[in-house]
Amino acid sequence: MENETKNTVTLDKVYKASRVLKEVIRETDMIYAPNLRPGANIYLKTENLQVTGSFKIRGSYFKISQLSDEEKAHGVIACSAGNHAQGVALAATRCKIKSLICLPDGAPISKVEATKRYGADVCLVKGVYDDAYNKAIELRDEKGYCFIHPFDDSDVIAGQGTIGLEILNQLPNADVVVVPIGGGGLIAGVAYTIKQINPGCKVYGIQASGAACMEQSIRNGKIETLSNVQTIADGIKVKTPGNLTYDLVSKYVDGIFTVSDDEIALAILTLLEQQKLISEGAGAVPVAAILAGKIPDIDGKNVCCLVSGGNIDVTILSRVIERGLKMSGRTTNITIALSDKPGQLSEVSSIIASMGGNVTSVNYDSTDLDMNITDCYLRIGMETRDYAHIVAIKKALIDKGFEVTD
Amino acid sequence: MENETKNTVTLDKVYKASRVLKEVIRETDMIYAPNLRPGANIYLKTENLQVTGSFKIRGSYFKISQLSDEEKAHGVIACSAGNHAQGVALAATRCKIKSLICLPDGAPISKVEATKRYGADVCLVKGVYDDAYNKAIELRDEKGYCFIHPFDDSDVIAGQGTIGLEILNQLPNADVVVVPIGGGGLIAGVAYTIKQINPGCKVYGIQASGAACMEQSIRNGKIETLSNVQTIADGIKVKTPGNLTYDLVSKYVDGIFTVSDDEIALAILTLLEQQKLISEGAGAVPVAAILAGKIPDIDGKNVCCLVSGGNIDVTILSRVIERGLKMSGRTTNITIALSDKPGQLSEVSSIIASMGGNVTSVNYDSTDLDMNITDCYLRIGMETRDYAHIVAIKKALIDKGFEVTD
Repeated sequence: MENETKNTVTLDKVYKASRVLKEVIRETDMIYAPNLRPGANIYLKTENLQVTGSFKIRGSYFKISQLSDEEKAHGVIACSAGNHAQGVALAATRCKIKSLICLPDGAPISKVEATKRYGADVCLVKGVYDDAYNKAIELRDEKGYCFIHPFDDSDVIAGQGTIGLEILNQLPNADVVVVPIGGGGLIAGVAYTIKQINPGCKVYGIQASGAACMEQSIRNGKIETLSNVQTIADGIKVKTPGNLTYDLVSKYVDGIFTVSDDEIALAILTLLEQQKLISEGAGAVPVAAILAGKIPDIDGKNVCCLVSGGNIDVTILSRVIERGLKMSGRTTNITIALSDKPGQLSEVSSIIASMGGNVTSVNYDSTDLDMNITDCYLRIGMETRDYAHIVAIKKALIDKGFEVTD
Repeated sequence: MENETKNTVTLDKVYKASRVLKEVIRETDMIYAPNLRPGANIYLKTENLQVTGSFKIRGSYFKISQLSDEEKAHGVIACSAGNHAQGVALAATRCKIKSLICLPDGAPISKVEATKRYGADVCLVKGVYDDAYNKAIELRDEKGYCFIHPFDDSDVIAGQGTIGLEILNQLPNADVVVVPIGGGGLIAGVAYTIKQINPGCKVYGIQASGAACMEQSIRNGKIETLSNVQTIADGIKVKTPGNLTYDLVSKYVDGIFTVSDDEIALAILTLLEQQKLISEGAGAVPVAAILAGKIPDIDGKNVCCLVSGGNIDVTILSRVIERGLKMSGRTTNITIALSDKPGQLSEVSSIIASMGGNVTSVNYDSTDLDMNITDCYLRIGMETRDYAHIVAIKKALIDKGFEVTD
């Protein structure tokens, strides 16, 4: 019986977590973002602005705060290269207990440093995530550390559920709440909490199409493991949903949709440019789903997108920006086949300028073996307004007799 | 007498602006950012999350709301390629009057599009800012539009001063407030307001060292015009302070400090990585001054940095990220002179890997005319932890007999 309560999420537990968490977390802002989708009232719950840069501190702090003195004396262990690592590290430091985080040795320097900064000891394990996980379990068994699961734990889920309380408090007339799904801890907590208090509010989950373990499991009616996962949203790159999270999602979530990496990149860029917010891939999937029109029946509705985290590596961010600009027709490359005679670059440039395109790079290539030896390719990179603008520029070039091959 | 009140900032006017502005602006969040400078309690007033992405909407909306019906009927005109343009455009649209914004024709497509999106007509003027300004004045005289000055206007200043009220409300025990200065409208309003209510609170202004018109004018005791200005913080790239703003800054500001473009780039990167906030150059100068240790006597104090705006062009942001990473020793390029024999790249790579550096690019160059024909330069780009890490890697290479020339 005690065991059953221990493994069950209850509203009492969520309220308790909410009180306990006041010591460490911020009540993050709910920001109205009307331009994201005309016709719907979109709001952003900005957990990317949470302490540690993601919601994960909520679950791990509440979990650790509930450990017995004996468990605390042994310290905690976790395996993660991301937000969970930083959440556990800071939570343990605040609870004045020791933490050890196992990371694969290929983890980015920035993540390793951040985890250390929050006070954890770091154990770099040769190999990939699974190797680091196995090492953590081995160390748990050997040293008696308490293992903090990233999602499949009722205290962790109750901690994440506190976001549901804040959403209902900050946006009492919310009609739709859209939440990222990796292993399912966040949405399990949020959906459970919201449905207990306001069952009329829809809760939808979003997964990356390259890691849609929960979507597939729910669709097939049983927990399934993906053989491989691939997405830029590394925070939700999970192969198998949890048992507890699968049950809660089955009961309380109204639908799961998937988004592609290109859709995620565009959402990150949109949040950055329009809202001045840095979101990681996992944090941007609800906005990606809104932008791609995947959520049903939201016109005139109050829709809350949970931006769950902002811990994106800056080098990846640079690449995402480039991809997002290309995706939205704001930059493009065109290739023009030229016979290699003077004045052609000048003519091409002046056509593009007269159409309002802004040339950012120019490359000649006369080494292609398929071409006549006197011909060359002119490859031009430029900034444009949108796809229609690109089409208009290409048409102007073709009208002047140029052969645009791309 | 009426004219005198019209051109004077009063606390009444600021309170009035605060009431009027409730219709359009958000009370932006005050975010605790303890990691920015250990020892001081740094808070960020996030006006980059304001509607239109900057504080400018406050001044322009209050100004436009106070126009007579006759003035409103004529519509308004402004000259700006940045935040003021978007502020005036949205303010006019909300007040249901027409606005025309003159921009130099080289303005980035993104800024032109944003200004149009907020409902303004746009007049692209051949040339630079001064040409666009002259055109705006010409159109004002010809058509009777009301010209909205970006800073030297008591209503505009009172509107910006509402941020002072919010700061004192959100952080009642603020000891120090740090504010960007361009023409001086923002700091004039904020410093005036804060000193009326809490004279013990210090207010410091920050300018870009390449556009320090107010700093120089205050130092020399009279308004001076810079012959040229150069900074990545285009939002505060101003040649001459205003008359009204000069007077208010003289009376109410405790000191002005300057920051370099490299310090600004590092601040933008720090806000992005640690706080998940996009700031433009102008918005980042207070944090730049904190990071560079330019503000006196802040240990143990409650310090509010006003992050005034987030409208940075994404292509510039990419370059700032690169520069900031280099500035903080997180990426580096080293050049090694090699005699062109097999196995050397492999040896260099393994030394760098063993030291924990992460190679991101490799270039051979054997075309330098100063070298022996069999020699070459090996140029390696890599990710590193900090400067000490770079020094350690170079030392390891030198210890193995390599000639590191950079």
